[in-house]
Amino acid sequence: MTGGAGQGRLAIIAGSGGLPAALVAALPERPFIAALDGFPPAGLAADQVFRVERLVPFLDHLQDAGVDRVIFAGAVQRPRLDPSLFDPLTAQMVPRLLAAMQGGDDATLRAVVAIFEDAGFGVVDIPQAAPGLLAQAGALGAQAATPADIADADRGAAILAALAPVDVGQGCVVAKGLCLAVESVYGTDAMLGFVAAQRPRLEPTRGGVFIKRAKAGQDLRVDLPTIGPDTVTAAIAAGLSGICLQAGQVIVLDRDRVIALADAAGLALWAVA
Amino acid sequence: MTGGAGQGRLAIIAGSGGLPAALVAALPERPFIAALDGFPPAGLAADQVFRVERLVPFLDHLQDAGVDRVIFAGAVQRPRLDPSLFDPLTAQMVPRLLAAMQGGDDATLRAVVAIFEDAGFGVVDIPQAAPGLLAQAGALGAQAATPADIADADRGAAILAALAPVDVGQGCVVAKGLCLAVESVYGTDAMLGFVAAQRPRLEPTRGGVFIKRAKAGQDLRVDLPTIGPDTVTAAIAAGLSGICLQAGQVIVLDRDRVIALADAAGLALWAVA
Repeated sequence: MTGGAGQGRLAIIAGSGGLPAALVAALPERPFIAALDGFPPAGLAADQVFRVERLVPFLDHLQDAGVDRVIFAGAVQRPRLDPSLFDPLTAQMVPRLLAAMQGGDDATLRAVVAIFEDAGFGVVDIPQAAPGLLAQAGALGAQAATPADIADADRGAAILAALAPVDVGQGCVVAKGLCLAVESVYGTDAMLGFVAAQRPRLEPTRGGVFIKRAKAGQDLRVDLPTIGPDTVTAAIAAGLSGICLQAGQVIVLDRDRVIALADAAGLALWAVA
Repeated sequence: MTGGAGQGRLAIIAGSGGLPAALVAALPERPFIAALDGFPPAGLAADQVFRVERLVPFLDHLQDAGVDRVIFAGAVQRPRLDPSLFDPLTAQMVPRLLAAMQGGDDATLRAVVAIFEDAGFGVVDIPQAAPGLLAQAGALGAQAATPADIADADRGAAILAALAPVDVGQGCVVAKGLCLAVESVYGTDAMLGFVAAQRPRLEPTRGGVFIKRAKAGQDLRVDLPTIGPDTVTAAIAAGLSGICLQAGQVIVLDRDRVIALADAAGLALWAVA
């Protein structure tokens, strides 16, 4: 599915951030690059910019360009929709999309995937297309996790598992067994900034682990959890001693720099199943 | 158990905040007031200040004072312990307390309750002793909850129910089905301040409901969820349109002022089972 096995071209449906460019660099040949208006991918020129209000004509255009498989990559926050821009066929999809949006991010993304599949596209996931972008099990850097880090990571995984059925949370912060924060729609950086600001108030004021995992049942074809150098910097600023990722399901952007930053700060960075 | 049925005196084991004084005002006769060192109750003179490191002598003192029932009231953050202050009998309890603290706040408080019960005290809860302090089902103020508020409140209740087994969260904020924040050890005001700071970033930038409930299985004899005027002010600053409490299980401090603030802002304040 991922390389030359398909008959047509692969397209990246790109959002913002560094992931689309990292993915393009990891793929064996350059894909068609489509970017959602308002969420430009960093360091990447789009072959086409599209809007949700004109999704059906955009899908037709992809087919005309010989695309038969798509891969979603990059961050998209719910775009504002301009009612005056809808074409009639896309307008018919609005009830379906709005219903899905009531159910949380996962439900929304599942609906988007279904629309592409219904239009005849294969939907490829990043673990399949570019496995080298994902954290594999074990230590990524030089600092080993302590038993306290591992206990906090276990508790964080249990918290995220509990939240999965209600479609909340790819991340949380746990220190000495205490839950310091749960990731919300505002994302990882906002959560780590909150912890950094609150830490002087209560013990423990340092230590603890940021746990980042895919939600159980999450569709890995969209919205893969991602960390990068900014995540490590924010974790250090929050006084944490570790970052624990889910092996095979979390993307590490700019891995060399991520590891260098973690090692320089003595931060344990590791992945577990 | 609550009034004159017992043979001895009732003692309040008080933490900080306005709850201990509100409880004293609501009780038919003045109880013995014991305050944890470092967490003075507002507007209330303690008959005795005690420290965790000398818990066993404190329990003996309560018995000498004729106390046979206790009621926990007020906020306590995990106190720092000074190893040099422990008496030998209290020191023997340390492993039990530390093990409980690894399991989260509920486990810690259950262990504290068990220590008082093992020493022969009855532990009375606030709903039993002063039911008038709790929110009863229905609207508390003049503003009715909209269907959107009610839907957000339902989703918030589901999120908190999912978190209960891992002993996290008495509160969360939901707007248009999106989880904006989950309460952590840093408490309600920190969470609402986070939402206020983040709201300009993403839609919806206004509206939504703060949901406050006891954790399923939570021991209501300690750590009852509590709101007061500051909570309403913080919810308004976070752009919320409602506060939904669990009927019979959330204390409303300074109720007249809480309702006046909510009504003045058009904030729906209601309680559901």
